[in-house]
Amino acid sequence: MSTGVIEKLKWRYATKKFDATRKLSEAQIGILTEAFNLTATSYGLQPLRMLVISNNNLQEKLLPLSMHQKQVQEASHVLVICIEDALDSAFIKNYFSKVEKDRGTPRHILTPFEEFLVNDFKKKSAEDIEQWMAKQAYLALGNLLTVCALEGIDACPMEGFDPEGYDELLGLKEKNLKSVLVLPVGYRSEEDPFAEMKKVRRGVEEVIITY
Amino acid sequence: MSTGVIEKLKWRYATKKFDATRKLSEAQIGILTEAFNLTATSYGLQPLRMLVISNNNLQEKLLPLSMHQKQVQEASHVLVICIEDALDSAFIKNYFSKVEKDRGTPRHILTPFEEFLVNDFKKKSAEDIEQWMAKQAYLALGNLLTVCALEGIDACPMEGFDPEGYDELLGLKEKNLKSVLVLPVGYRSEEDPFAEMKKVRRGVEEVIITY
Repeated sequence: MSTGVIEKLKWRYATKKFDATRKLSEAQIGILTEAFNLTATSYGLQPLRMLVISNNNLQEKLLPLSMHQKQVQEASHVLVICIEDALDSAFIKNYFSKVEKDRGTPRHILTPFEEFLVNDFKKKSAEDIEQWMAKQAYLALGNLLTVCALEGIDACPMEGFDPEGYDELLGLKEKNLKSVLVLPVGYRSEEDPFAEMKKVRRGVEEVIITY
Repeated sequence: MSTGVIEKLKWRYATKKFDATRKLSEAQIGILTEAFNLTATSYGLQPLRMLVISNNNLQEKLLPLSMHQKQVQEASHVLVICIEDALDSAFIKNYFSKVEKDRGTPRHILTPFEEFLVNDFKKKSAEDIEQWMAKQAYLALGNLLTVCALEGIDACPMEGFDPEGYDELLGLKEKNLKSVLVLPVGYRSEEDPFAEMKKVRRGVEEVIITY
């Protein structure tokens, strides 16, 4: 599989124009949603959820909220990675209850670490916690982009959108979520000139330092 | 390959104990460094470099700087993802020179976007730029973790270390770098009880919302 992964990573690019006539299958979306759920996150807390949007009317409404980047309209599906609007003690305790249930780990082993985390997060500002959760969203994005490449799914990661606008349109406040990253997925259009362009990278010799 | 990716993601876990006798090959490290260089980053700017440490003495010195997590000492290699200590106009212009050279894109097409980015970053605070670069580091980590899983390489992503201590020990200030994430890689020890534990995840039905 060795050279395979690198070839796939070279194949991927930030798709500028999707083929609006081609849709991803349920099975393909299933792989992306499962991969998202399996993403590593710090402490395993998973303070993330992902929206899967496949609705022409809604995608059209996302367009003005996405700096008019056509990908949100033309892609097969638009994924939106969201963070929780707060990571409180209840959230942490809920996670440890799940560990106890799923793994059968005894309470007396879990409690000290649970207390450590609850106290640690209490010390952090809401702003710091939000930044930390956003970083976990980027970690999930990194996983998804690689899984997309492996599965031959085109994608275009986007930071340039109006998060408040998305949150309002998609009713995220009521779901205690905030949108952080947008990822239209589908198939590249044959008319996308960016598909054939040489990938520009600093190069292994420049970005790697060996000790 | 479909089910393959998911099976590989299920196989991976945050390795608590590495087999100190087993080393990754040059070819395996080559895949990880190439994958790091190919990671998507915002605007393609790649404000990242990665250290590849494989030196017992140095790894031992990392131990007290890593909350005494034995993985940094016992892993085959320790990868450290770093951000640039500043992303200034020169860095951005250097990137566009590279695009011009590598792709042959005419200057008049590049200049407006180059100017937009230079001005955009001038408006941001050093703190905001640092946070943004750190997010790109997490994106690279997400890619690396998935590539490790695909290649059967064990890994343990770490936020819990002393970045200033790392920067000093590794002479990063002189290289204009700041350490952000640590990733020991190698092979799991047969004695790591965490290897066999059930993975705890919120579950697709909870983390995915369909529109």
